[in-house]
Amino acid sequence: MKKPTFIIDEKRARVNIQRMAEKCQDLHISLRPHFKTHQSHTVGSWFRDEGLTSITISSVEMARYFAADGWQDITIAFPVNLRETDDINELAETCTPGVLIEAPDTAARLDAELRAELPCWIKIDTGLHRTGIDAKNFPAVLDTVRAIAASKHLRPAGLLTHAGHTYKAQSVKEVKAIHDASVAQMTALKKHIMKKVNIPLQVSIGDTPGALLGKTFTGVDEMRPGNFVYFDVMQYFIGACSIDDIACRIACPVVALHRERNEAVIYGGAVHLSKEQVTDSSGKTLYGLVCDQHGKLFDGCYVKALSQEHGVVYLSSDYIDNYQPGDLMYILPVHSCLSANLLRDATVFQ
Amino acid sequence: MKKPTFIIDEKRARVNIQRMAEKCQDLHISLRPHFKTHQSHTVGSWFRDEGLTSITISSVEMARYFAADGWQDITIAFPVNLRETDDINELAETCTPGVLIEAPDTAARLDAELRAELPCWIKIDTGLHRTGIDAKNFPAVLDTVRAIAASKHLRPAGLLTHAGHTYKAQSVKEVKAIHDASVAQMTALKKHIMKKVNIPLQVSIGDTPGALLGKTFTGVDEMRPGNFVYFDVMQYFIGACSIDDIACRIACPVVALHRERNEAVIYGGAVHLSKEQVTDSSGKTLYGLVCDQHGKLFDGCYVKALSQEHGVVYLSSDYIDNYQPGDLMYILPVHSCLSANLLRDATVFQ
Repeated sequence: MKKPTFIIDEKRARVNIQRMAEKCQDLHISLRPHFKTHQSHTVGSWFRDEGLTSITISSVEMARYFAADGWQDITIAFPVNLRETDDINELAETCTPGVLIEAPDTAARLDAELRAELPCWIKIDTGLHRTGIDAKNFPAVLDTVRAIAASKHLRPAGLLTHAGHTYKAQSVKEVKAIHDASVAQMTALKKHIMKKVNIPLQVSIGDTPGALLGKTFTGVDEMRPGNFVYFDVMQYFIGACSIDDIACRIACPVVALHRERNEAVIYGGAVHLSKEQVTDSSGKTLYGLVCDQHGKLFDGCYVKALSQEHGVVYLSSDYIDNYQPGDLMYILPVHSCLSANLLRDATVFQ
Repeated sequence: MKKPTFIIDEKRARVNIQRMAEKCQDLHISLRPHFKTHQSHTVGSWFRDEGLTSITISSVEMARYFAADGWQDITIAFPVNLRETDDINELAETCTPGVLIEAPDTAARLDAELRAELPCWIKIDTGLHRTGIDAKNFPAVLDTVRAIAASKHLRPAGLLTHAGHTYKAQSVKEVKAIHDASVAQMTALKKHIMKKVNIPLQVSIGDTPGALLGKTFTGVDEMRPGNFVYFDVMQYFIGACSIDDIACRIACPVVALHRERNEAVIYGGAVHLSKEQVTDSSGKTLYGLVCDQHGKLFDGCYVKALSQEHGVVYLSSDYIDNYQPGDLMYILPVHSCLSANLLRDATVFQ
């Protein structure tokens, strides 16, 4: 490996997939994994090996990529982009793309342009406050369900949320509390809506920490976690995985050493790792953790700064003498989805 | 424009290039612009139109890209990656790549693998503390110059620094102070080295804020700024440019509006803008500023959060009613180099 390279640990990834598939089977919940994490036909095939046939992605472009690999049941879990209705119509010729709506007007405008009948989800906000209709705003959800039901091409599929505020949780207990509150809001909302309109609606939930750590899934029909296939430092800090579960690492050539300040410089910067950052328990901002080629953590060693192509790595005295320029250093990324996206053309399987 | 699109304002970019070229001509300094900012043959041709023939890039891959467009004199301003010596040898068959060294041992190891004679710069640290030999460590620099001079294939070119700590400056005065101190260290170092060895050495400096705002350039032979071709919100906050100088913006489709909290959601996330952030004078973290299609700022409107594909934008009450789903919103990026890299395949010229 001559350049920053995203290494996927197939064995670990397959175990992660299998574990999630089994949890969903035990809970009698459909698993519709989010494929934005890996954006890879090969990794997709490992999900297929577990018998999965439904997937989630977050752009029309990704839907096209996976439809080309034979996936048929694809939810585009992103508020529908009205500038891409032609592309959605074209996509609907080869697969069944589910769309996401959060306002009656958008439903009507989309419907007017569509040629095929599509499953349509209503995006619900259970506390992340990124987007979606507030789960407590029953009238707005009802209006949207009715607009979809009244449309020519949209078939109401259900209520969909992403309780992504679990990513900012400081403890496992907090993740569980957010998850429970989100599920409770979704089931209460569904109950209310079903009383008003006689339309079967599914409940779909999304985040990896909640899917992993949550215990209460009553009323949930479907889960859409994505990150769990690789995990990363963020999930490790949240408590959603162990270091040994992380199924990816980035190999970066060492290009300079500054032993007097316990630092190495690697070829591996913001255009490889992304500038996603986390704060550790001591208040340090970090952009990755250092491990060996098998993913074993080097205690106290971390990526402390990134510019476009450079990474500056702090190495404790126990480890710095192991490196010289020309060696490879292995980094666990803070956010595997972003690193995988940046290094799509520089990925290897191990 | 259906998807997040990087728009390059050719007129403004050409003015930015011309202004920098004129400043360098007036100062009798060579301009060797950093092409990592744009990574574009088309934008490169605008520099050629100003009569420039020497460029800087930060990876072997970028050198290859620009060599393919006929550029001959290319400095790879990144500590040499000993895992890419084969690629450097191959590159040297079509252009003259300059390399960067910061330790005698690396010079010797590189020399043993090279087939062509290459200009070799010594990386000096004048205070950024990212990498390079400390400018005050005369013996270490001298050892490195001597190792290069003694090598078979490396020809000492000069002393090269990047005073990138200007990017963190809080005022124009601070930028000037950092710049002056950096230039003073470089010239003192050169003077010392030249007394010991009879080898002509150039002084090359790098950062855009210093190149723009600096007044003292005595003893400087070459400048390598890059960002100035587009500028961005970071440079605007530093005081290195005005809003009207910014020669790029990102068009993002609006996909949802949350008028009750003055927010819009755009198709434009971390994989389009990058997670580079700045803090404004009131302490707010932001990921971009909102402007109109010509780059005119919408006061008080900014990107407040990014996930993989979503951007959450705060819009003041003066502007929020201008938007509905399906419209385009224009964003000035925090760091144009990273956004340009992410959107290389989705770039248009205006």
